[in-house]
Amino acid sequence: MKISALMTSAGINIGICVLLWSLYSVLRKQPAFVRVYFGRRIAEENRLLREAFILERFVPSTGWIVKALQCTEEELLAAAGLDAVAFNRMLVFSIRIFSLAAILCLFGILPVHYFGRKMHRLEISSEQLHMFTVGNVEVQSRWLWVHSIVLYIISGVACFLLYVEYGHIARLRLLHLKRATLNPGQFTVLVRGIPKTENESCSSDVDDFFTKYHASSYLFHQVVYKAGKVQKIMTGAKKACGMSDPSTDTTLDQRCKAVTYPCCLCGASSDSFQLLPTDEVAKNIDKKECAAAFVFFKTRYGALVASEALQTSNPTKWVTDLAPEPDDVYWSNIWLPYKQLWIRRIATVLGSLVFLVLFVVPVAFIQGLSQLDQLQKKLPFLDGLLKKPYMSQIITGYLPSVILLLFLYTVSPIMILFSTMEGPTSHSERKKSACSKVLHFYIWNVFFVSLASGAVINQLNPSSSTKDIAVRLARVIPEQTTFFITYVLTSGWASLSSELMQLFGLIYNFIIKYVLRMKEDIAFVPTFPYHTEIPKVMLFGLLGFSCSVLAPLILPFLLVYFFLGYVVYRNQLLNVYRMRYDSGGLYWPIVHNTVIFSLVLTQVICFGVFGLKESPVAAGFTIPPIFFILSFHQYCRTRFLPLFKTFPSQDLIDLDREDQRSGRMEHIHHGLRSAYRQFPDNEDIKLEQILTVGNDEDQDEGCSSGERNGEETCKEQEPEGICVTQL
Amino acid sequence: MKISALMTSAGINIGICVLLWSLYSVLRKQPAFVRVYFGRRIAEENRLLREAFILERFVPSTGWIVKALQCTEEELLAAAGLDAVAFNRMLVFSIRIFSLAAILCLFGILPVHYFGRKMHRLEISSEQLHMFTVGNVEVQSRWLWVHSIVLYIISGVACFLLYVEYGHIARLRLLHLKRATLNPGQFTVLVRGIPKTENESCSSDVDDFFTKYHASSYLFHQVVYKAGKVQKIMTGAKKACGMSDPSTDTTLDQRCKAVTYPCCLCGASSDSFQLLPTDEVAKNIDKKECAAAFVFFKTRYGALVASEALQTSNPTKWVTDLAPEPDDVYWSNIWLPYKQLWIRRIATVLGSLVFLVLFVVPVAFIQGLSQLDQLQKKLPFLDGLLKKPYMSQIITGYLPSVILLLFLYTVSPIMILFSTMEGPTSHSERKKSACSKVLHFYIWNVFFVSLASGAVINQLNPSSSTKDIAVRLARVIPEQTTFFITYVLTSGWASLSSELMQLFGLIYNFIIKYVLRMKEDIAFVPTFPYHTEIPKVMLFGLLGFSCSVLAPLILPFLLVYFFLGYVVYRNQLLNVYRMRYDSGGLYWPIVHNTVIFSLVLTQVICFGVFGLKESPVAAGFTIPPIFFILSFHQYCRTRFLPLFKTFPSQDLIDLDREDQRSGRMEHIHHGLRSAYRQFPDNEDIKLEQILTVGNDEDQDEGCSSGERNGEETCKEQEPEGICVTQL
Repeated sequence: MKISALMTSAGINIGICVLLWSLYSVLRKQPAFVRVYFGRRIAEENRLLREAFILERFVPSTGWIVKALQCTEEELLAAAGLDAVAFNRMLVFSIRIFSLAAILCLFGILPVHYFGRKMHRLEISSEQLHMFTVGNVEVQSRWLWVHSIVLYIISGVACFLLYVEYGHIARLRLLHLKRATLNPGQFTVLVRGIPKTENESCSSDVDDFFTKYHASSYLFHQVVYKAGKVQKIMTGAKKACGMSDPSTDTTLDQRCKAVTYPCCLCGASSDSFQLLPTDEVAKNIDKKECAAAFVFFKTRYGALVASEALQTSNPTKWVTDLAPEPDDVYWSNIWLPYKQLWIRRIATVLGSLVFLVLFVVPVAFIQGLSQLDQLQKKLPFLDGLLKKPYMSQIITGYLPSVILLLFLYTVSPIMILFSTMEGPTSHSERKKSACSKVLHFYIWNVFFVSLASGAVINQLNPSSSTKDIAVRLARVIPEQTTFFITYVLTSGWASLSSELMQLFGLIYNFIIKYVLRMKEDIAFVPTFPYHTEIPKVMLFGLLGFSCSVLAPLILPFLLVYFFLGYVVYRNQLLNVYRMRYDSGGLYWPIVHNTVIFSLVLTQVICFGVFGLKESPVAAGFTIPPIFFILSFHQYCRTRFLPLFKTFPSQDLIDLDREDQRSGRMEHIHHGLRSAYRQFPDNEDIKLEQILTVGNDEDQDEGCSSGERNGEETCKEQEPEGICVTQL
Repeated sequence: MKISALMTSAGINIGICVLLWSLYSVLRKQPAFVRVYFGRRIAEENRLLREAFILERFVPSTGWIVKALQCTEEELLAAAGLDAVAFNRMLVFSIRIFSLAAILCLFGILPVHYFGRKMHRLEISSEQLHMFTVGNVEVQSRWLWVHSIVLYIISGVACFLLYVEYGHIARLRLLHLKRATLNPGQFTVLVRGIPKTENESCSSDVDDFFTKYHASSYLFHQVVYKAGKVQKIMTGAKKACGMSDPSTDTTLDQRCKAVTYPCCLCGASSDSFQLLPTDEVAKNIDKKECAAAFVFFKTRYGALVASEALQTSNPTKWVTDLAPEPDDVYWSNIWLPYKQLWIRRIATVLGSLVFLVLFVVPVAFIQGLSQLDQLQKKLPFLDGLLKKPYMSQIITGYLPSVILLLFLYTVSPIMILFSTMEGPTSHSERKKSACSKVLHFYIWNVFFVSLASGAVINQLNPSSSTKDIAVRLARVIPEQTTFFITYVLTSGWASLSSELMQLFGLIYNFIIKYVLRMKEDIAFVPTFPYHTEIPKVMLFGLLGFSCSVLAPLILPFLLVYFFLGYVVYRNQLLNVYRMRYDSGGLYWPIVHNTVIFSLVLTQVICFGVFGLKESPVAAGFTIPPIFFILSFHQYCRTRFLPLFKTFPSQDLIDLDREDQRSGRMEHIHHGLRSAYRQFPDNEDIKLEQILTVGNDEDQDEGCSSGERNGEETCKEQEPEGICVTQL
């Protein structure tokens, strides 16, 4: 590809960016779209901004950028949680390391490449991009020491920055733990695999077990019912009543003492259910369907100890884990039999692998497009079309990555579906699992398969070249840089702009408001799609590291991406998305591992490249950093990783003692009773009230548990960004 | 290789076996060698068997075989510990599965191979071994369904047996836990990474920390000193005293209250040390050198909880683990700074890898020997020698595996050296780590490199054949069977006989007794070398599985090996080796994983073979078992593995309560005070006595701590089998 084709692509994308950013700066000032662009703030701060018409509203402005940049980490933490801070640090890390890399590579390495081989120079605009890659360096060049030194500096500084960031996130995680004093999840253990006994009810089983073995810290418990089954029994009851309206509601108390079926819409009094004795139904459900329970403890440390121990000699019975936060609980999975989970995990791994492999087809097709001359040979009937200069520039420079981008939109919904099937008990766990699946997918399908299919089309013999991965990558990377640069432009710049514009949200809002003329729903605020955004940013990081020394021209484009991303994501986190649940920075280890992988891969690729250039010294110099990076990784695993897997007991005990001293503990224990509700009510009904059988307060709730679960599972095929959940 | 060459090899080995076994049955009856062949029983049962001369002593007999076979699992558990039972179950599993495999393969598959291709038949003795392998089956043969069915049966039955055995060992482990009521390790936590503070002594630091955070279960503690440093201070003290005799002894009390330096040999009274105030020295040591501590808890559950929790927000400080049993503690590693361990681990992994790679040289050389015709081409000057028929049969049939065997003798000492450098805190952990290192080594160097180098010498292009591992293995395995059969004969049969004979022990005993004329040492009993024997048996298992369907002729030889091994190892465990420490069956997960790996590899190899035979149906049929086996493995990981990583709290709490009810707890707590001694005395001095400064009882101890540690580290380069430790 020529420089001019690249410029075409860059031009299109810059145009799109400027347009969308300007549009955004106007639209965000329109009261009609305030729900789209300030969802979080409206939902959380309960503001209603309906202003009069002023001209200023229609002039593009940049004030929001300043606001996004000025926001401190404290504010971000308060507004969007620790995950948002981790995400933000990831961007900061990328900006720092790639600023350094850009300076070193553009001023140190680019001249070496450009003047590497004496040849006839064209005008710079029609120069092939190839001129700026390592491919232009002569074999046995003496200048490869520049590459080695730059590699050493980048690896060293990256490790240093990673260390600082890991420590920072770990510190924040501990602070977060200490601050969130009224966090019910810290006092609660989720018990699964409760063994079935003949005589007693499940509830008393749980009570007996924990009274016997955790007497000193056990407080009380709450059984989780298999929602589908409860629904089925309800339906049966309704049929007996002669109705099939689905909007009737159900309430089960949380201590399985009694069940009531208020049935307001059909007007029948609850007496009509006396046919089915409620106590018997409750027992029935209890005996068969209770698969899990929340067990509450007096202290945080007590809960931690109970959650970490192996309870009985059968590791699939009485499985204890720290419970997720109430808002984080993924109710439709929580009653899954624990014994099923291992097979679900295998099935989803298999499913993801199959999906990963099948996706090679579209990626290879896209690569075909980016290799114009090869394409002309293969599909001669396109010849006329491709001979028009602007067409060929669009096809090679822009179309492939747009198509890839569109294909990639299907990935995250499918991966989150897989993650749901895996059986996580919390939303954040589900998202985290989807995040690593998408990440693997991106690295494999966008990075490796792009390279491999590029190589295939280049008539490299694929069977002989698998033998030496380093050499193969080395040969292909400089050639594929063009594609990667355009990928940064389209998938990076343009998708950031569309993220900023919230196209889906805008259209949805428009349809709801002006087409369907429905009432706006204030509580309708999406959560941040970490599982799509983290892999995206990490993929760009991987591209940056692996191309930095070999084809430094990609770095300025990447750097712009990271700067734009920093502004856009901060703005979105502060204004658009709502923090409904938080994993507590658990995304950071994923980020760390990916950067380490990228650094090692970079060294391996450079080893191959320097080998191809017949410079054994330079190739040899790439080996020590690999060991250094892996040692550093091992150090971080021992130093920081345990903090992301459990909590330090010292801090928990200190917190417990402080709460006990200040008398807050009583209050916390009281709050625990109503913290987890499987079948939520619109009104905040206290447990004590529910326990009085036959109260009328919960008769007007609109969204029963079944619907809620249904809504969440059916929406899983869309990206989380638009999967807004009714709060 | 011809059948006759194989028979030569078999003949030599059978001869050696019969000779050694007869010799053993005579020698074991000689009172002079009773220490060699009944070390455990003499040491543990304190018997002295010195009988008069009777003729029967010089007649070979088989009674010991009957005795070894009659011994029940209960007796074996009592005599040699759970590890021995796990080892025994491994042999039982191998016998069962390979009996089945032998029946199926010899009667089902061997005829298919032998009559697979119509060709001129020779006399059976000069038939090439190749005739009995899958290599003799025609391409696109219809008979490959026999192979598929046999593979399915073997995989299924192997998984079933593995499941049964895993459950059995897990059950035994729990029983073992419950029986060993006076096990100090269950009450003790090893604390490492104690942070240095300015003012206080390390001992009071430990006390403060555990009193503050584990007050309810903390009992007391005992600081571990850096042995080398204590020695240095002692030496300094001695110099001040004007002596340099190294045989003076030192005693440090275990609660770092006071230190005495009785110095009996030089005749100086302990008053001569008043120059250096003992309290100050103790404080000095304490401040700088205490790197670890044993912390004792009131209950088993308390110790478990403390050992599993992450103590502080810095995971490299206050690192707690359940302590090893007193006899199992590896004192010279226990004070290693915890912060060093990660780099030690990396260094040893690197070291093992380098060793693994360098070892390819001798293995390739050996493979050269087994390919006679290739060798003749390469080294024409050997022509005359190799043309003699018996020479060529010995060289191809026997010599290669003997040389390999000799080379392999260097592996386990080197691997145990690496494992020691890794910094394990217990003997059993060190042995377990060495076991998996040796296992990886065997699988890589004996199995894969033998195959690969065989292929290289066969003029297969090595660079093109790495591409498709399955196909490559498929091509080579039938050809390499000869080598593997001779390997079973020499390394298997013959080394079992030499194990039975205890050649090293015999020679050592002879030298000590008749050459050096030293007094016999009753307590001089080695421990069983699991780290060499388990990998050996597992390698034969791997050979058995991977060759079973393709070259079934190996199975009868293997089956004989496993039967012999069953008899020999049981005899050795009962009579020769002493159980000084026990990992509690932790070897079983290693065994399980290796068998799973072998099964999967077998399927992969068969996939390649059936592919080469152009039978896509048969090849396709090998894929479902892979998923089945991996799923089964995943199931076992969730069902059994947690029991091998920790103890179920239910059982521990029940045990604790029983002990408290029966009043045994007081007794146990008392016993804990003297359980761990860093500087052991010959006499069993109570801690209370030691605490009275200046007692004379320990003045005549011969082996000071420094020597002991020195002895243990310097002997590490020899196999554990002869590294006998003075008890």
